[in-house]
Parts: sequence; structure tokens; C-alpha cells
Amino acid sequence: MIDINKAIESLDWSKEPKGLYEPIGYALASGGKRIRPTLALIAADMFGGKEEEVLPAALALEVFHNFTLLHDDVMDRAQVRRGRPTVHVKWDDNTAILSGDQMLIEAYRLLSNVPADRLPQVLKWFNDMATGICEGQQYDVDFEQMSEVTIADYMKMIELKTSVLLAYALKMGAYIAGADADQQEALYQYGLHVGLAFQIQDDLLDVYGDPKTFGKAIGGDICCNKKTFLLLTALEKADTQSQTELQQWLAVTDRDQEKIAAVTAIYNRLGVRPVCESAMEQHTVYALAQLDKLPQNEATGQLRTLAEKLSNRKS
Amino acid sequence: MIDINKAIESLDWSKEPKGLYEPIGYALASGGKRIRPTLALIAADMFGGKEEEVLPAALALEVFHNFTLLHDDVMDRAQVRRGRPTVHVKWDDNTAILSGDQMLIEAYRLLSNVPADRLPQVLKWFNDMATGICEGQQYDVDFEQMSEVTIADYMKMIELKTSVLLAYALKMGAYIAGADADQQEALYQYGLHVGLAFQIQDDLLDVYGDPKTFGKAIGGDICCNKKTFLLLTALEKADTQSQTELQQWLAVTDRDQEKIAAVTAIYNRLGVRPVCESAMEQHTVYALAQLDKLPQNEATGQLRTLAEKLSNRKS
Repeated sequence: MIDINKAIESLDWSKEPKGLYEPIGYALASGGKRIRPTLALIAADMFGGKEEEVLPAALALEVFHNFTLLHDDVMDRAQVRRGRPTVHVKWDDNTAILSGDQMLIEAYRLLSNVPADRLPQVLKWFNDMATGICEGQQYDVDFEQMSEVTIADYMKMIELKTSVLLAYALKMGAYIAGADADQQEALYQYGLHVGLAFQIQDDLLDVYGDPKTFGKAIGGDICCNKKTFLLLTALEKADTQSQTELQQWLAVTDRDQEKIAAVTAIYNRLGVRPVCESAMEQHTVYALAQLDKLPQNEATGQLRTLAEKLSNRKS
Repeated sequence: MIDINKAIESLDWSKEPKGLYEPIGYALASGGKRIRPTLALIAADMFGGKEEEVLPAALALEVFHNFTLLHDDVMDRAQVRRGRPTVHVKWDDNTAILSGDQMLIEAYRLLSNVPADRLPQVLKWFNDMATGICEGQQYDVDFEQMSEVTIADYMKMIELKTSVLLAYALKMGAYIAGADADQQEALYQYGLHVGLAFQIQDDLLDVYGDPKTFGKAIGGDICCNKKTFLLLTALEKADTQSQTELQQWLAVTDRDQEKIAAVTAIYNRLGVRPVCESAMEQHTVYALAQLDKLPQNEATGQLRTLAEKLSNRKS
């Protein structure tokens, strides 16, 4: 398979004006798992497609993903990303806004190198994907202010914010490589549900992760009252007494360690963990079932391993 | 000709989530001259093209232009746009960033409706145009901090920031309508030079405009030491004494009216106004000369009138 890191490194950001392009190079050099372009290439391999035909879309997806991080970090006032200062901290807000805009344009520029006969369809999907991400981000912002958020609302939000990008990466790779509509759809569904399982696992690790391997402090979501799958499940399952107790702890803004311990105890009493694990497993199982509809080869095996690894991950 | 205002009004922004789409509707409903989509349609008419084939690109250009205003207003902390509060004032910075991002994506979505056989080329040009605008904006920011900016630097900046959008609007309209490469190029050059003439006239009006018709306070650029065509011309023409005097006034941050009068007096003494008027006229003449290379019909006449009107405008 094409080395996606090398392909990203080969993009030239030494252009003028430096104030516009240097932050883009900085953001793209900071690593990350490159999961989205890798999925596009795996999907292409599954159908014996030419990787160089899929590469423009794969790179566009990675640059797009990193664009969202630049702007999200401004909006969330995040200070650190992948162990380094975020762009708006290292430069300033205006730089992160403008260089972020240019990254979004660069994503479309990379995309424009998709073979012309497949470009119109890929461009439409890319727009749908990008729209989904912005809508998901807006729902995430909205939910912070809302008192009543259901698990269904939450799942819709993470589907838009996280899953559609994975799903479209696979679908585009498959389409460009010549897969038929059913095969594209199976990969799309695989991506959606792997993404949902990933996010639920993320929420679980925040509370039940091993501090040694998790990489972040345990309980961060609890401290800031983040409406996670766990909290929403707890609020749905709670009897009047637990409900009151939970609301009292949500109002606490200091005593972090005490709050984490107390809310975790409520989760344990209500049996939140097995409910979340079961939901995660259902999405993983559903994702894996999609793979049965596809050609069985090395690429399919990679997707099987990926889905299994995601739901067993420790960080 | 298709009513471009009606076409823009018919775009639906009543979608969910409202927090994302309402600011887009607000920004697009605030009017403006719709000059970019109009240019695209005029170019199409010149070659007897189908307006409905050009409309997607025309709308994309207008939505793109308004996206740049949303983000520019955040970066410049502008409070008012077309007589109404800017989006970041009416909502907040994060809303202007995210809704702006979505507007850029919507521009590409509109563009994707260009006939498939012409889409790859139009998409490449659109990306070049969008990149030019971001680069121009960055140079504009850079110039504020630089002590030495030449007139050539300034012209390059306004070409990117203002002219390429007009030039590509015409070129895209002509291309989609079936014009040949020379005709596309003539229209592109017309757009570039009309844009440059427009910007120089803008700089002139700030100092020499009639307060009754100009719509803004006279001397705004002088107060904030904006590196306009006038100031850069003055700095190039000044002898040592005028140079010193000018630098002293640039260091003044209060006494606005006195500063405006003094700098205007220096401009008058150095003969800055006729130099600028001559530069503006040269660009207008060059733009008009391009029209001689094109079919002579109603559309060409409209472009001739437009170029003449721009250089005689009072606001």
C-alpha cells in the first residue's frame, strides 16, 4: 500500500505567503493515525483499484480532517493537540481561522485530481460529508446548552461528527476502485458503525480506562458534565433518588476527585457500564456483519482486525 | 437575464441545526451588489450560453464571497456590514467561524451542479480563485506589520484579494458557455484590471470623495495608517523633508481631523491624486481594450458601461 505518511509529507507548504502556509505544514506534520486516508486505500485495495486514483481523495480527507481540528481548537480554546501547542496558541486566532480556511480549499484542490469521470460523484459525497461534520459540531455546541438530550440525539450527533467521515472515506475508495452500489453501501455502514462503537468506547475509557495506558486523566468528561453516552444512559436509567443525586453532583464545579468518584459510583450502581459495553458491541457486530457482503481478501481482513481492535483498545 | 437576487433568495436556510444555517441566511439576505454572479451571467450571455448551466457557478461565487466577509469580519473585529450587525456580533465568534466554514462548503455544493463535462476545469479554477483570496488576505495582514511595502507589492495583494474573483467569475461564465481560450483570457484580463481600477478608486474616494455621497467618513484610511495606493505613492514620491513630515504624522494616533488635513495636504503637495487617477485610468483603458477582442453584443456593452461607471463612481 502507498505510504500515506510519505504522501502527506510530500505536500509542499514552503510556499508564500509563509504566514498562510506554515501553520498548515505544522498541523499536518503533527502525526495522528491517518485512519481516514488508510480506510480509503483499504477500500480501493479490496476491489483491486489503482491506489493512485484513490490517493487524491484519501489526501483530501486527511487535510479536511486536520482543517476541522484547527477550527475546533479555536472554538474550544484547546491549548494542546498531539503533544504540541495548537495553531491558535503558537500563532493566533486569525491565523488559525485563515490557514484553516485555506486547508479546506486545499482539500478540495487535492480532491479535484480524482479521475474526471468519477469526480462529480466524489465531489457531491465530499460536500455531504463536510456538511455532516459541521452539522455535528453545531449539535455538539447546542447540546451543551440543552437540559434534555436523548441517547438518540447523541447518537445522531456523533454519527455526523465522527462516523460520516470514516463511512465516506470507505465509500469513496470503493467507488473510485469500481465497487458496485451494494458494496459501497456495505462499506459505508461498516464505517458508520465502527465510528459509533469507537465513540462509545471513548466515553467508556474516560471513566473506566486504565490511567497507565489511557494517556489522559480519568474522569475529564465527568468533571465538565460532558453529555456522554454514559451520562445520558445514567440519566435515562436513574430512579428519582439517583436522579436527584446525579443532578446535585452535576452542579458541583470544584472537588473534582470527589465528583468523579461519586458519579462513577452512581454509574456502577445503575449498571451503566454493561449497557454501554453492550451498545458498543452491537455496533461492532453490525459493522463486522457488513464485511460478509464483501469480497473476502486481505483488505477485508484488515477491516475485520480494525473493528475488533477498536473495541478492545485501551487508549 | 436570470434574476440573481431571486435565485439567492430561493436557497433554503431553514434547515436544522438552526444555529448553523440561520447565520448563513442572514448574511446572504443582507444584499450587496451581486456583482460576481452578474459578471458570470453576462459572460455567459456574451456567448449565447445557457444561463441555467452557469447559474451554479454564479451562486457558488456569491456564497463564497459572503463566506470571506463572515471570516474577515471576525478577523478585523468589524461591527457593522451593510448597515447591520456582523454575524460575530449578532451571534458570536464561534458561530461566525462554523457558519462561515459551512458557507464555503455550500459554495462547493452549488458548484458541483455545473455540467459534469465542465466541472473538473471549473473546480480547479474555483480552487485557484479561493486560494488567491486567502493569499491576498494574508498579504494584507502581513503588510500591516511591514515597514517597506512597494506599490508592486500592493498591486499584487489587491489583485489576489479583489480582482481574481471578478476575473474568474467572467472566465467561468465564458468557459461554461463555450467561449474559446483567447476569449476566456480576454475576459479574465478585463476582470483583473477592472478590479484593480476599482480598488484604486476606493483608495481615492477615502480621501477625495464627497462626504455627501461617499457613505463612509472621509479619511478613515489615513487615520489607521492603511497602506493604500495613495500613501504608498506619497512615500515613493516624497523628498527627505516630506518623508519626515509624513512619518511624523503616521506616528500620531489621536487628533484624527488634524492628521487627515495634514496628510491630505502632503498628498496634494506631492501630486498624489493625479498619479493615482492616471493609474486607475490606465487599468480601465486596458480593461476596455480587452472587450475589443470579444463578440460585440449587448453583454459586451454591459461590461463597457460597467468599467466606465466604476471609474466615475462617487461611492
